[in-house]
Amino acid sequence: MKIVMIGEAATHRDEIAAELGFEAEYVALPREAHESPEWDEQIDGADVLVAMRFKRPNKAEVPRFRLLHVPGAGLDGIDFSIMPAGSVACNVFEHEIPMAEYAMATMLEHEIDLGKARATFDTERFSAAYLARKPRGELFGKTVIIVGFGRIGQAVATRAQAFGMKVIAISGRAENGHVEGPCSEAYRAEQIDEILPRADYVVLSCPLNDGTRGSFGCTQFDAMREDAVLINIARAAVVDEDALHAALTEQKIAKAFLDVWYQYPAGSSDTVAPAKHRFEDLPNAFCTPHISGWTHGLFERRYSFIAANIARLKSGEKLQNVVYGEA
Amino acid sequence: MKIVMIGEAATHRDEIAAELGFEAEYVALPREAHESPEWDEQIDGADVLVAMRFKRPNKAEVPRFRLLHVPGAGLDGIDFSIMPAGSVACNVFEHEIPMAEYAMATMLEHEIDLGKARATFDTERFSAAYLARKPRGELFGKTVIIVGFGRIGQAVATRAQAFGMKVIAISGRAENGHVEGPCSEAYRAEQIDEILPRADYVVLSCPLNDGTRGSFGCTQFDAMREDAVLINIARAAVVDEDALHAALTEQKIAKAFLDVWYQYPAGSSDTVAPAKHRFEDLPNAFCTPHISGWTHGLFERRYSFIAANIARLKSGEKLQNVVYGEA
Repeated sequence: MKIVMIGEAATHRDEIAAELGFEAEYVALPREAHESPEWDEQIDGADVLVAMRFKRPNKAEVPRFRLLHVPGAGLDGIDFSIMPAGSVACNVFEHEIPMAEYAMATMLEHEIDLGKARATFDTERFSAAYLARKPRGELFGKTVIIVGFGRIGQAVATRAQAFGMKVIAISGRAENGHVEGPCSEAYRAEQIDEILPRADYVVLSCPLNDGTRGSFGCTQFDAMREDAVLINIARAAVVDEDALHAALTEQKIAKAFLDVWYQYPAGSSDTVAPAKHRFEDLPNAFCTPHISGWTHGLFERRYSFIAANIARLKSGEKLQNVVYGEA
Repeated sequence: MKIVMIGEAATHRDEIAAELGFEAEYVALPREAHESPEWDEQIDGADVLVAMRFKRPNKAEVPRFRLLHVPGAGLDGIDFSIMPAGSVACNVFEHEIPMAEYAMATMLEHEIDLGKARATFDTERFSAAYLARKPRGELFGKTVIIVGFGRIGQAVATRAQAFGMKVIAISGRAENGHVEGPCSEAYRAEQIDEILPRADYVVLSCPLNDGTRGSFGCTQFDAMREDAVLINIARAAVVDEDALHAALTEQKIAKAFLDVWYQYPAGSSDTVAPAKHRFEDLPNAFCTPHISGWTHGLFERRYSFIAANIARLKSGEKLQNVVYGEA
């Protein structure tokens, strides 16, 4: 069996090998092989291609493989129109756990600001700092609107409810103000502008697609309260970049936690700006380099899942999480 | 009705006045009046004394009052042996919510370190930072031992369980490995040394009393794992100071979040060191100046409760949260 792994995925060869009960041929390719045909000869004939992205400038000539296993959930890096005949694509989740932990951490960061409390602590200033303590806010009783109520949104919601937060879901499955899952109310995307003024927090956790691209713009920032906080753990392009920059500069909202970006390096020696604007220069933008889902636990669970799917492919069993082709 | 308020409590006069449906005489006294007899003439004859501490060097001469309302839960600042004849003391809770939020924030801080991720983010370094991301840990699947399973401990536990953490309670009510509440196992304090090696996190949320003073010492730090984290939101004196300092210096544990201290300023111009050792100089000590419970929500809930008890005192109804005297 030939298993080709591209970019970051190639660093997880050992996890797959440890889980598989049989020998296989492993080929590791650089990040650039996601979109450049330069390594296609090495991909050609693979049983499994593990790659987060798969695009080709010349659609006529693409390598053949049986299974494209995306080692993540997002499919916006895959051009399904160039999938080889008879091939199948699968994805993996497991990131809802770290992403929900990240989202809760940002909300607690906004209320508590542990780092600031620590930075001002020393023996000499203790008495003054103690006596001058200013009360902070609580998550308890606050409202979080979760845009996109899939695995990630629901994982955030479960934790937010345990904190006594009110959870309002924005979901395509919402009907009559309700949807199944850990929330007290739910609405369709068309109704979001009416609901946004109620939010203390807005968490974006929807997929990027034609319906969501640029869907969070000036109108939505105007609908949010000045003391509200936006947390984007979906895809940057869900939010109109200029509208976001204006909202933060004009303090239409209190803060934005931004973990997802408008541009990413294509290759390992590539250097790109994450956005047109320098968001990190804005005091009310809290920027992190797409770390929300990046945990040891994530990789253990994901590569264990991928290995199990590869074993199924070998034995002819039904694959799990099929997103393209015949299961 | 005469209501005397000491120290920080005196800043909440308006909250009480707004809740009470009747006029009252309010007397605000400085922090020093907690333990010095200098203001006793003004306290004498009060219907209500709202004070976090009440101690006198000369026990023979103490002012009279009907109700001592402690505006917090901890009673270690009260010398009950000098309470006036026929008087009653009540306390308040409501801090379990902010303290549980603080405890969860410390655990997420340890796993995620948002501040560090933010500090290294800028347009120029983005591509390199993104490509060099190192996986972090998760709370999911980790074990937290909660020492003291009262209101605070259980509030931490509810939230920790929503994160998929395993909760082990140390409680005087534990029997046969169980206690009622959000935990999967529970043990008595005598068994803690056997249980501690299982902890990723240890949260101290027990009261300070003769049984708990200095109860967390060398033996307990030796029983903890090197990658484990201690979070003290109880009282500093529960932990032996020298043993704590040695454990952190010798890296017997990974980190300690310390929000409670061995000394506090007695008066508003008083300057004391929080501890003998300079914990803030240790990279694995995360020190904050007793902020864990300090929220707007706390004060709203507490002074609303105190006002309701004062109204009960006036109308002769049964007081709530009586901790001394006849209800």
